[in-house]
Amino acid sequence: MTPAFAARLAAAHDRYDSLLCVGLDPDPKRFPAGFSADVEGIKAFNRAIIDATAEHVCAFKPQIAYFSALGAEAALEDCIAAIRERAPHALVILDAKRGDIGDTAALYAREAFERYDADAVTVNPYLGTDSLEPFLAYEDRATIVLCRTSNAGGGEFQAQPPEDPLYLRVARRAAEDWSQRGNVMLVAGATHPAELAEIRRAAPTIPLLVPGVGAQGGDPQAVLEAGLDAFGRGVLVNSSRAILYASAGDDFAEAAGAAAAELAATLRVGAAALH
Amino acid sequence: MTPAFAARLAAAHDRYDSLLCVGLDPDPKRFPAGFSADVEGIKAFNRAIIDATAEHVCAFKPQIAYFSALGAEAALEDCIAAIRERAPHALVILDAKRGDIGDTAALYAREAFERYDADAVTVNPYLGTDSLEPFLAYEDRATIVLCRTSNAGGGEFQAQPPEDPLYLRVARRAAEDWSQRGNVMLVAGATHPAELAEIRRAAPTIPLLVPGVGAQGGDPQAVLEAGLDAFGRGVLVNSSRAILYASAGDDFAEAAGAAAAELAATLRVGAAALH
Repeated sequence: MTPAFAARLAAAHDRYDSLLCVGLDPDPKRFPAGFSADVEGIKAFNRAIIDATAEHVCAFKPQIAYFSALGAEAALEDCIAAIRERAPHALVILDAKRGDIGDTAALYAREAFERYDADAVTVNPYLGTDSLEPFLAYEDRATIVLCRTSNAGGGEFQAQPPEDPLYLRVARRAAEDWSQRGNVMLVAGATHPAELAEIRRAAPTIPLLVPGVGAQGGDPQAVLEAGLDAFGRGVLVNSSRAILYASAGDDFAEAAGAAAAELAATLRVGAAALH
Repeated sequence: MTPAFAARLAAAHDRYDSLLCVGLDPDPKRFPAGFSADVEGIKAFNRAIIDATAEHVCAFKPQIAYFSALGAEAALEDCIAAIRERAPHALVILDAKRGDIGDTAALYAREAFERYDADAVTVNPYLGTDSLEPFLAYEDRATIVLCRTSNAGGGEFQAQPPEDPLYLRVARRAAEDWSQRGNVMLVAGATHPAELAEIRRAAPTIPLLVPGVGAQGGDPQAVLEAGLDAFGRGVLVNSSRAILYASAGDDFAEAAGAAAAELAATLRVGAAALH
């Protein structure tokens, strides 16, 4: 039997033949004219972006800090409701990078999977396997573990020691242990395609969430070459700012839709050429 | 000049000559009879614990997941307000274990230091130095970096490779780089006193937040021997459940006060004997 989450991911991929995830990082300082810098403005901006990009995506990834820093939990709830209404095929990935132990980890899992009803949540593996188990216990949801992040300092600890780097140890643990229920993904940044390829070899069947395309400069084609699995799938490429803020003018929604369509097409054509 | 945070920590220590931090993990399932399992019940329970323990502590550490899982942000705000009213000497440590990059890290810092006005926040170093900088930029607040955690799986990645374990690389980076503004602490669990002693040697002047005493079985005396700095300070021992739930009856507040007084005295006497 196909695990519940894997089936959901495949269906989301298939709906528009898309490997694209749109990251929702609503920054009031970058909103076009006419949007207020409050909960209502955040709700309206997110809804406009979701409407404009829904037919091009496999997933949306709201970043919780953009809401919690402003006390805008209500806007996050509205954002997820909007995705369910307007893009019912799309996965909701709550980007929260949680990591804690025992009862506390169980509460963070409850926050992501029950309070916000997300399909997946990002988590940090620093505290070890027991810190991940309360998330993994939600069998129909996915736990997306940070492995090799896309930021400039991502290698400082993750790529050490060079002969057996932390990110590969995390990838192996994911492949050998954490993914027994088929509900694990790994974060592997587009800015380090050679390391992404190593992660793919260490974890051949684990879907990868790949940030770092777009504003951070990662190359979509290099990501596909390094990251696709044996079925030409298994990669979810995230883009946030390059889509949300494609235009600062009144045409921001059309521009976001066009940017999402273009990246989705690049990924579709690139993946087809490789398989 | 003494850095602002170090002065604040010293003053908090001095107020009641205490090395104790009380962790506020309000779990409605463990509340005594008469407390409701909602925002109002959480507020009332926290206020009772804060009142009963204030004169024995150097700090309180609310754990954000206990609030966010339930949509009880208002109870967290109330909890911090209660600490400011009733224990104005005490530091407020927001236990959130955040870790993200760039703009997102800045938003998490804003959540902790502006929205909740915490004196300190716990963070996860997996993403490297650039992920910590937005927190460190708040010079009068402390960034408390996970180093060696107290849970059973804490060593899985943190203690690898044995010849140069991750937790020691984190401790060295804290000592050599992150602590330039005097506003860094490290988390070092009481359950591994030998490793705690290594961390103290690698970072001789950095204050340590030490969980794992009490319910997790860490020994206070071993913590003091391993962790005190050259001035007989530099250790903040956290206890949560062993204080909050010292009694399940109507005497829970008196029992919490007595448990806090006892552990604070143990730490005071133990530290005095060593210096």
